[in-house]
Amino acid sequence: MKFTEPSINILKQFKELIKSRDILNASLLLNKLHSADIAELLNHESPENQKAIIFLLPLEKASEVISFLENTVREDLLEILDTADIPRFLEEMDIDDATDIVSELEDDVSEEVLSSLEPETSNEIKKLLQYPEESAGGIMSTEFIAVSEKTTQKAIVDDIRNKVRDGSVSQIYSVFVTDDNGILSGYISLQNLILALPHELAISFMDRHVVSVDSLMDQEEVVKIAQKYDLVTIPVVDEDKQIIGKITFDDVHDVFEMEKHEDQGLMSGTGSEEVLERSVIKTTRDRIPWLFFGLIGGIISAYVIKFFQPTLDKVIALAFFIPVVACTAGNISIQSSSITVRGLATGEILLFDSWKRIFKEFKVSLINGVIISIVMAIVTSLIFTNVQLALVLSFSFLFIAIIAGLVGSATPLILYRLNIDPALATGPFITTANDILGLLIYFGVFWMYLF
Amino acid sequence: MKFTEPSINILKQFKELIKSRDILNASLLLNKLHSADIAELLNHESPENQKAIIFLLPLEKASEVISFLENTVREDLLEILDTADIPRFLEEMDIDDATDIVSELEDDVSEEVLSSLEPETSNEIKKLLQYPEESAGGIMSTEFIAVSEKTTQKAIVDDIRNKVRDGSVSQIYSVFVTDDNGILSGYISLQNLILALPHELAISFMDRHVVSVDSLMDQEEVVKIAQKYDLVTIPVVDEDKQIIGKITFDDVHDVFEMEKHEDQGLMSGTGSEEVLERSVIKTTRDRIPWLFFGLIGGIISAYVIKFFQPTLDKVIALAFFIPVVACTAGNISIQSSSITVRGLATGEILLFDSWKRIFKEFKVSLINGVIISIVMAIVTSLIFTNVQLALVLSFSFLFIAIIAGLVGSATPLILYRLNIDPALATGPFITTANDILGLLIYFGVFWMYLF
Repeated sequence: MKFTEPSINILKQFKELIKSRDILNASLLLNKLHSADIAELLNHESPENQKAIIFLLPLEKASEVISFLENTVREDLLEILDTADIPRFLEEMDIDDATDIVSELEDDVSEEVLSSLEPETSNEIKKLLQYPEESAGGIMSTEFIAVSEKTTQKAIVDDIRNKVRDGSVSQIYSVFVTDDNGILSGYISLQNLILALPHELAISFMDRHVVSVDSLMDQEEVVKIAQKYDLVTIPVVDEDKQIIGKITFDDVHDVFEMEKHEDQGLMSGTGSEEVLERSVIKTTRDRIPWLFFGLIGGIISAYVIKFFQPTLDKVIALAFFIPVVACTAGNISIQSSSITVRGLATGEILLFDSWKRIFKEFKVSLINGVIISIVMAIVTSLIFTNVQLALVLSFSFLFIAIIAGLVGSATPLILYRLNIDPALATGPFITTANDILGLLIYFGVFWMYLF
Repeated sequence: MKFTEPSINILKQFKELIKSRDILNASLLLNKLHSADIAELLNHESPENQKAIIFLLPLEKASEVISFLENTVREDLLEILDTADIPRFLEEMDIDDATDIVSELEDDVSEEVLSSLEPETSNEIKKLLQYPEESAGGIMSTEFIAVSEKTTQKAIVDDIRNKVRDGSVSQIYSVFVTDDNGILSGYISLQNLILALPHELAISFMDRHVVSVDSLMDQEEVVKIAQKYDLVTIPVVDEDKQIIGKITFDDVHDVFEMEKHEDQGLMSGTGSEEVLERSVIKTTRDRIPWLFFGLIGGIISAYVIKFFQPTLDKVIALAFFIPVVACTAGNISIQSSSITVRGLATGEILLFDSWKRIFKEFKVSLINGVIISIVMAIVTSLIFTNVQLALVLSFSFLFIAIIAGLVGSATPLILYRLNIDPALATGPFITTANDILGLLIYFGVFWMYLF
């Protein structure tokens, strides 16, 4: 059987079977699919249906499916599962997946689950639980193979064979090598292991260019390193430089996906909200702080405009351009800030390039400002039917563009120096601040002109 | 030597050497580093310095460094390199990297380069160049190993050994298996290859759950599949189901990174702009369309407000709240739209869930709307000192919140059905449209109240 994604036919059949409450045949149908596909289908079912189907799948497959479920979906499922059933699934999983699940459980449930696991599994999980969730230790697995430099190729192969057989290792891509002090000194890709002769010693065919990460390193840093050096597996070491785990490319994918969502959450004001979150209240709670942030900005803007009411009374048409002022200032600053934040995140902007970056943004916003102010001069002289006022307005736009560009590029750089996550400068924060700044400049320029 | 990231000391030394124009010692210093680190340092140097240093590195390392450079940086470097030198570097690279570089060259230069490459390399590159840049074929490498089902473990190992020796394969993670018709029927991870006995046949220890992608599949689809099934290598097949290439986890990382930048570009209005782009003109050209988009929205808003001038004349204080109206409508819609777009992108929202999604967004924006309108009622009665007007304003905010939520969630779903990239609904487009809609509702409600 050649395996591909589930066809639309299977989807329909599955939906039909569920509708007619034929859970047995639904699970038989699913059993033919890859666990990742089953999880994808179950993501859209009620926890009760999920539970019924999972218990009809073979134990190993059921465990895989559970580890592939979306976090929010899995949390709902775990809540209705019998506490006595959870350990059976956990025993079948990779140790890092099992740890993630234990950390998702309520405190009393997780204690009960840990105490009914096999002592070895339970100890491994307890060890992993000690690392911060978003650290290298928090995402690593303890299933790795490390050998000394003096080990022969044949002994390494035997070691792999034994550990796979007894289940202490499931999938490896490379073998780590340690020196006499137990410190990581190299690694052997499975390809090089295959190419070596049985009597050759690890030290003679290992790769010494080994990059490792500290167990407390932030997961985003780990991802950067994995990407930069194209690593399929990264050894994780403790403060004594002893190997304590490994992180593989699929963990890196997961972090990447999570980060992308975090960044989007920051930019769009949805925070850590999950797509499949069922609860309307939780969703509202995730979003309302961002809306309040905007509201506060809006109320400050209201006071700014109120302050300039004498100016507004004189030229009521000034009100017409309030949205375009706010929007232009916000857009220019978000452009400069987001490109700066990205450069800082990827390391493309080293800190000693700061002034270069700000100067470049200054030039770009100067050109953009000139173009925009010419356009606005033309458009507004048509609306105002007063060329003089149009010129003042056009001048204020040039001013706004330059300031917004500078604020946009400088803010993330300053946050970075203060050790605050510069990504904060990509969201509603910078747009709101610049909306207000834009209005101050706009009314300020007119006030100076009129009074 | 244990390898780690370059220390700040090396950075400083390097900068000093470059400053004193001691290129020879600068390159000796760099030679100790990983190619990815050298590229990172060179990204910040002038093309002339890059060229000087690259020619002092060993050929193989120099080629690696070139393939690690940022695209915009590499393009500048390639322009000042002698056309006769480029083929020497390309011969050393992986075939997919070499293809990328050829595609970056000016047409006449690339022809010259292709004709002076070894015929085999040149033919492979020409074949790869035929695939769309963002397709599976466009990112795949042709360095893979495929064996028939009847091959013994020993023969496979010998095959790998020979191909690595003659340079036709550099790094593999799995071996593909084909049936009698040459059609992909399974794969063997190197781990399983090691565990198998020399006389065992591929068919007896291969994994039949093999997921392949079509050569014309969009790279974003490929990434989704790699992520979903946790694949380290994905075979690429042509329309006759013959294997023609492979995509590895590091290609997936690259696409992921690229996509993230594209999404951020859409959300922040920086388009395809690169952080290290040197030219101010190119940067301006990337950004100005987005600003114009905002400007047009702003000008439409200006006309909307002008249309309601009689209403505004009656209550000048209405102008105070223009920014908060625009910002609230924009924020609510961007929240609903971005979470919907994300769900569509990851497949978490299947299309038959559309109404469910819209209904959920309706409920969320109803709750948010109620909270916001209560806050606005209180705040505005303080500013207006007119409770009746404050109540009307508060009602208009409730109305705005509901409409913005609906528009935000429906727009991406409609775009998706029309086969237009729903990600377009995360950017300035949806905020601008909702700014205008918000103003229409705001002034409309007051107009009905006042007249």
